[in-house]
Amino acid sequence: MKPAFEIQRRVEFYETDMAGIVHFSNFFRFMEACEHAFLRSLDHELHGMLDGLETGWPRVHATCDYRAPARFGDLLDVRLFIDEVRPRSVRYRFEIAGGDTLVAEGRIAAAHVAITDDGIQAVALPDPLREKLLSFTHDS
Amino acid sequence: MKPAFEIQRRVEFYETDMAGIVHFSNFFRFMEACEHAFLRSLDHELHGMLDGLETGWPRVHATCDYRAPARFGDLLDVRLFIDEVRPRSVRYRFEIAGGDTLVAEGRIAAAHVAITDDGIQAVALPDPLREKLLSFTHDS
Amino acid sequence: MKPAFEIQRRVEFYETDMAGIVHFSNFFRFMEACEHAFLRSLDHELHGMLDGLETGWPRVHATCDYRAPARFGDLLDVRLFIDEVRPRSVRYRFEIAGGDTLVAEGRIAAAHVAITDDGIQAVALPDPLREKLLSFTHDS
Amino acid sequence: MKPAFEIQRRVEFYETDMAGIVHFSNFFRFMEACEHAFLRSLDHELHGMLDGLETGWPRVHATCDYRAPARFGDLLDVRLFIDEVRPRSVRYRFEIAGGDTLVAEGRIAAAHVAITDDGIQAVALPDPLREKLLSFTHDS
Repeated sequence: MKPAFEIQRRVEFYETDMAGIVHFSNFFRFMEACEHAFLRSLDHELHGMLDGLETGWPRVHATCDYRAPARFGDLLDVRLFIDEVRPRSVRYRFEIAGGDTLVAEGRIAAAHVAITDDGIQAVALPDPLREKLLSFTHDS
Repeated sequence: MKPAFEIQRRVEFYETDMAGIVHFSNFFRFMEACEHAFLRSLDHELHGMLDGLETGWPRVHATCDYRAPARFGDLLDVRLFIDEVRPRSVRYRFEIAGGDTLVAEGRIAAAHVAITDDGIQAVALPDPLREKLLSFTHDS
Repeated sequence: MKPAFEIQRRVEFYETDMAGIVHFSNFFRFMEACEHAFLRSLDHELHGMLDGLETGWPRVHATCDYRAPARFGDLLDVRLFIDEVRPRSVRYRFEIAGGDTLVAEGRIAAAHVAITDDGIQAVALPDPLREKLLSFTHDS
Repeated sequence: MKPAFEIQRRVEFYETDMAGIVHFSNFFRFMEACEHAFLRSLDHELHGMLDGLETGWPRVHATCDYRAPARFGDLLDVRLFIDEVRPRSVRYRFEIAGGDTLVAEGRIAAAHVAITDDGIQAVALPDPLREKLLSFTHDS
């Protein structure tokens, strides 16, 4: 299966820990960076406006399986796949590889919300975005 | 069920993001901080030595479900439960709460490894640690 | 000279880097955590309101001299001193020590601003806060 | 004056804070990322070996002046200048700009050290590296 999107990312020194490898929490940041670059590539404003309300994509679920360590200076490929497009949320899957080695696999479920005076409320994905996202779920 | 261990942690400004809430990746750091404080409470050296080899606890799996946002200045309770003690790994479960509100639930599976010249290799948990950990899995 | 405020802070695993010591950028986070705990102790809302405008404390300058490494598990004392109270900004000095060892010395200059539709604008410190801060600059 | 090196860097969501701008501590990470890419471009191993000892570049001083906020999605130019090459340390200067706007100016002084059984010890820069670095200090 072909990824819907892919970025390359050099591991920085400050992303390592005293075990000499990338700290596990940073893989979630790599995934989000890929998700945001993907949405940007679709001309979608990440913190946009909908009917006069600010919108955002808080996470409802995130998971990662660690297969191999990544080290300072490694050039990682972060690949995004779209698992499911729901009316008010998207489920992404990610593969993070260093060359031929699969380093990590992860998933993020992001809700689409509007920020109101009373807090946040899930709202439907805008149709143009929904259609673009769906196009990546067929035979992709 | 009573937690095996619990810490309190104030949300710092640098842990928030532009959505005004704690960035989702930081919950994995809160969980790890609790795990480390727990192991410290058992007199277990986190980066210790075993038969002359340096040992560590790389993560093989991490997951989090986000229930409610946490904000700057919130005082969070991070509760650790032991789901399973395996010969060479431990599975933790965490609840993160702000007062009466459950903010997040997570899981971390950590392997016990020795660092050799050839890389890392899973090794058995030391018996005293294993017994202490097991004591938290019965009716605790 | 006695510090105006002091916090203790355990070095977390995720704050170390592959050199086995605290990453230098994290000392700025330790200083800010101390500054915020100090302002909280004065009953000052960090992101408060002034004449209906949201206020904040963006940094205009930050510096740190590193004297000795800090390591995972170290218990650090972070001490805050007030160097100068200006009409619309405050200059803090910090000492970070591990036991008897001075680990780092730093300075942060923070502007007091209001967030308007046109951006941010420096505004005078509220009088009660200004007086409290000044009280720490005399023979303290 | 022409920079010795320059990188471009997109501001990530996790680098912002609740004030909606890049957290001030992250500018030190941007500078270090540029320094490391620069040393990599000179074929210098950042964590190399010298006479059988592991070497590194701990920071002895870091400072930053903040001129304008940087926001999520901004494409920043990070420019490195070499202020001074000493026998056992290097002093860098950085300019961080977003388009025509100077966002921040910083300095980092990094010591060249070898890690011995007794701790760390400053050691002379390798001659080839020293000469390359010096070449950037003349009319560059």
